[in-house]
Amino acid sequence: MTADSVPVREDGRPAPPPEPTARVRLRFEPSGVQVSVPPGVTVFEAASWNGVAIDSTCGGHGTCRKCKVRIAAGEVPVSRHDPRAFDAERLRQGWRLACLAQATGDLTVEVPPLTTRPKAATVGVGRQVILRPAVQKRYLELAEPSLADQTPDVERIVRALDDLEVIPDLHVYRRAGRVLRAADFKVTAVVVGTALIDVEPGDTTARRYGIAFDLGTTTVVATLLDLATGAPAAVASMLNLQQPYGADVISRISAAMLDPAALDRLRDAARDTLARLTGEVCARAGVAREEVYEIALAGNATMVHLALGIDPEPLGVAPFVMAARSFPELLAGDLGVPVHPRARAVVLPALGAYVGGDIVAGALAAGMDRDRRLRLLIDVGTNCEIVLGDADRLLATAAPAGPAFEGAQIRCGMRAAPGAIETVRIDPAAGRVALGVIGDAAPAGLCGSGLVDAVAELRRTGLLDASGRLADPDAARRISPALAERLATVDGERAFLLTGPDAAEPVYLSQRDIRELQFAKGAIATGWRLLLEEYGAAEPDIRQVLLAGSFGSYLSPASAIRIGLVPRLAPTRIVSAGNVAGEGAKLALLSAQERAGALALLEEVRYVELSDRPDFNDRFVGELAFPG
Amino acid sequence: MTADSVPVREDGRPAPPPEPTARVRLRFEPSGVQVSVPPGVTVFEAASWNGVAIDSTCGGHGTCRKCKVRIAAGEVPVSRHDPRAFDAERLRQGWRLACLAQATGDLTVEVPPLTTRPKAATVGVGRQVILRPAVQKRYLELAEPSLADQTPDVERIVRALDDLEVIPDLHVYRRAGRVLRAADFKVTAVVVGTALIDVEPGDTTARRYGIAFDLGTTTVVATLLDLATGAPAAVASMLNLQQPYGADVISRISAAMLDPAALDRLRDAARDTLARLTGEVCARAGVAREEVYEIALAGNATMVHLALGIDPEPLGVAPFVMAARSFPELLAGDLGVPVHPRARAVVLPALGAYVGGDIVAGALAAGMDRDRRLRLLIDVGTNCEIVLGDADRLLATAAPAGPAFEGAQIRCGMRAAPGAIETVRIDPAAGRVALGVIGDAAPAGLCGSGLVDAVAELRRTGLLDASGRLADPDAARRISPALAERLATVDGERAFLLTGPDAAEPVYLSQRDIRELQFAKGAIATGWRLLLEEYGAAEPDIRQVLLAGSFGSYLSPASAIRIGLVPRLAPTRIVSAGNVAGEGAKLALLSAQERAGALALLEEVRYVELSDRPDFNDRFVGELAFPG
Repeated sequence: MTADSVPVREDGRPAPPPEPTARVRLRFEPSGVQVSVPPGVTVFEAASWNGVAIDSTCGGHGTCRKCKVRIAAGEVPVSRHDPRAFDAERLRQGWRLACLAQATGDLTVEVPPLTTRPKAATVGVGRQVILRPAVQKRYLELAEPSLADQTPDVERIVRALDDLEVIPDLHVYRRAGRVLRAADFKVTAVVVGTALIDVEPGDTTARRYGIAFDLGTTTVVATLLDLATGAPAAVASMLNLQQPYGADVISRISAAMLDPAALDRLRDAARDTLARLTGEVCARAGVAREEVYEIALAGNATMVHLALGIDPEPLGVAPFVMAARSFPELLAGDLGVPVHPRARAVVLPALGAYVGGDIVAGALAAGMDRDRRLRLLIDVGTNCEIVLGDADRLLATAAPAGPAFEGAQIRCGMRAAPGAIETVRIDPAAGRVALGVIGDAAPAGLCGSGLVDAVAELRRTGLLDASGRLADPDAARRISPALAERLATVDGERAFLLTGPDAAEPVYLSQRDIRELQFAKGAIATGWRLLLEEYGAAEPDIRQVLLAGSFGSYLSPASAIRIGLVPRLAPTRIVSAGNVAGEGAKLALLSAQERAGALALLEEVRYVELSDRPDFNDRFVGELAFPG
Repeated sequence: MTADSVPVREDGRPAPPPEPTARVRLRFEPSGVQVSVPPGVTVFEAASWNGVAIDSTCGGHGTCRKCKVRIAAGEVPVSRHDPRAFDAERLRQGWRLACLAQATGDLTVEVPPLTTRPKAATVGVGRQVILRPAVQKRYLELAEPSLADQTPDVERIVRALDDLEVIPDLHVYRRAGRVLRAADFKVTAVVVGTALIDVEPGDTTARRYGIAFDLGTTTVVATLLDLATGAPAAVASMLNLQQPYGADVISRISAAMLDPAALDRLRDAARDTLARLTGEVCARAGVAREEVYEIALAGNATMVHLALGIDPEPLGVAPFVMAARSFPELLAGDLGVPVHPRARAVVLPALGAYVGGDIVAGALAAGMDRDRRLRLLIDVGTNCEIVLGDADRLLATAAPAGPAFEGAQIRCGMRAAPGAIETVRIDPAAGRVALGVIGDAAPAGLCGSGLVDAVAELRRTGLLDASGRLADPDAARRISPALAERLATVDGERAFLLTGPDAAEPVYLSQRDIRELQFAKGAIATGWRLLLEEYGAAEPDIRQVLLAGSFGSYLSPASAIRIGLVPRLAPTRIVSAGNVAGEGAKLALLSAQERAGALALLEEVRYVELSDRPDFNDRFVGELAFPG
């Protein structure tokens, strides 16, 4: 690691980068869960996203005063609501309301055990959701049958569920007789929606779980939810095992088209991924797989088709047709998820072949259809989904950004993994380049947020002009002689060396890399500009930009504005929305109403097709330049 | 074969027995189907029960005049309606209306091809049913998708089914894309109830089939139905492969209780039986298994529980509790029936642990809930089910008849298989015993109808007194010296030799056999007498007695009256109803309304429990004697 990279602390671990785009580390006690989040995220959100349950009934607005935590190490200033919740002594001890405690540096946070059984949970982008999961349990103490009362076993159970209209699964007919008699007719009925899926001996009402999956093309995240409290019980993520078939959806569709056996293999790879994550979250939380009665899955249309074993070919060739926008009445087993044998599955519906269930989940999680403010939701990826609108009207489109943000097509590009440069600061006066690197590793490459940061900093310092050309040597020397030395020729093209001269493997940004980024941001900017036009609004009318996905979480708002990726607003209006796809899946599990809301979005959102617009290419070329 | 057995024709095959209880043989051309039925059955019924389709729209009442057949060999008198349907020349050629043509002797019948696509079919006990099967097909010529019309594949199909509300199976999502494109978007949608179960290339609307199963404890019958016409396409039957686990339901329940693995084996044996019959009827009719989209199954509660893999133990021990009376939303695969992978299954509902779906199917087929006449339906078997009533009120009970009618517990008892004596006539004047034997075989034993016939004849001739005791030698000699010689002592008890002295293996009826029959008929008579009391009616009020099941088909009404098994009515009021369980299953396939009617019967029929009546034993003992 060179002097140019992240400063190292006495314990040998990198100190937090000095700039606001670096990540901060939070350690939660007594669970021991450690997380790394963008600075400014609240302790409550950081906990919630990572499976640490904190009491709350108000949805993180500082009003319920239930989300009390103690900052055991690190600094969190006292917020204006804290003095109403804590006396001076407790404030001195570090007690804070988690929903108002912004993590701007590393913290150790003590989380008290849950004191209330919540009736609501905070999910998505600060959304407060009344808990109405489709999974319900009822403890029943039934009269034993007699010659005078020969009511059949399952009818006896169904009659006792007098507040629910249910249809029993065959599984229940097979089990009921033995379970009722082994448990002296004291049993718990397990209901999912209108299906009676099981009858369990004794009172098991306290235990009911669901798993929300974000089935990404690259990364898959599973959140085990306690459906009784709405609290996450465990979170796990891993790379999608479909990776060997290509990094993006098009290469996976091609794989399925070229080899008839590949469809089954792609399906199995998706299922293996989901199954491994299932095993992991259940093991971590000490939950039996049979206690998971429902799953929800958000993914793009290709991922959903492949996981269900549906041939994705019509998605991949014009006119880009899905098998269906929504899939009713699925079992978890239909997705290969090894939980309760009759567990149901909710697949978040898709708007179009390239505006999938992931972005519908995101729009749901962000409450796009409820907020009166004009907001823009951007999920940056190889295929970038964009939603613009408010409670009155919603528009959506998909922009072909290409894989630059995933690190592909970039000379030193890599994923956001240990060794990836994720923040870049250039100080022309000192002639220095400060790098933020993921993990305790030497810089090995450049991930998406680092790429945006690097280009934004080069542009800010004048080392890159508005057209996207690196400064010539004379101009560079006028800016900073030390930095001018970093403008070199690598493999026959101009490049800026991000690592210092003594790095074993130099990490650099080439002229062509910058062009790739220009194409990507040009496509995205064309997308939201055309949506703005369709809506009849201008850039300054936008009240909030939500950047979704892990890339969005780590992107510097200032840099995103500087390269023109997002509208030119005050940086505080550019908000990381986190894993909104996963949050939407959680919403679907926690609230049958929200689930219906996802289906309603299919009717409420108007899809704007970019590719058949005659002016698209002109507009796209016009967006390639950086803001002046 | 002795001189006492069935006369032999020149071709070496037994000639039809001279008495009205013998069976007659019908051969249908051009199908070549050969059947054996009780005399007096109409040609139409004999054809219908055995998978030979004959035009009809009136339900066999002689009014539609569509059921024209030609009697090519054998005699059928001209009925009063025939001259309205045929001119003299055609009558001379043998043309008759099949629904009025009673088969009283062997016949060869030429059946013209179906001329109309029927809107109704005759099923059950002469019931005319409007064809409204749950299985429907729609041929669709769909617009191909374009960039201007990206409607997803399955939504495109569902929208075109504008007269139906359907939910597609996952199977359809998986297949639709390929089928639509391979067939140029000209496809046939396959709907069962509210489920869209498949999409097939091209126009396949002419082909839709269902299988009706009568899952008996002893015999299982499968009827492949053409759901477009209501006509049976093929019928097959075989012994239930569960036989090795015991002849009756109690021994099979015991087997499942004694060995935990037996439940699975019993389930598999039932499924193997159903699967073999499925293969057989499909092969015979040239129908692909995938063209069978729904099955219906009628069976007693134990058979249904075992076939579904439900532990039957609670059925076998007091208080005799079922898992459920009805099983909604089953797949054919849940019963191991290898037809279309998403074919649905209807299991006829049961009234009680011993008044199962077979008798509910029977009551449906007999139209018990629609007929204004007071009627009695008796399904004679080890467990005898009895339904009494009319359109206003229905009562049902189960009588523990024991296995005598199945040939068990009877010294020379056997099933109604080749070699079984099924009719007996005793001529005291000639000193002769005439036997009707099933198949081209020497008499090997006595089946249920032969047992009833033998006892009735002994009673008629005075060789048996009203208390059920065989005549002493002196009394017998006064009746017939030749017959007195047949009263012998076998294995230390008195017996009547049915076969002559030169039979290699004598077939006889012992005093204890007669007692067994008395117990069986006593239980049944107690049952219908108590129902009559509950209903507030007397024996002469009964307008019709329907004897169900194969045993009922071959029983002589006169003999049944003589031993007191059925009420003392004119023999013409005692009617063989055929395999009403199987007919009920057919009704369920052909008409969704009739299927709902079966469920309605659960509410309409009042079950009268015999076993907890304090006067049952007294009444039973009072019924043991034969009518004076």
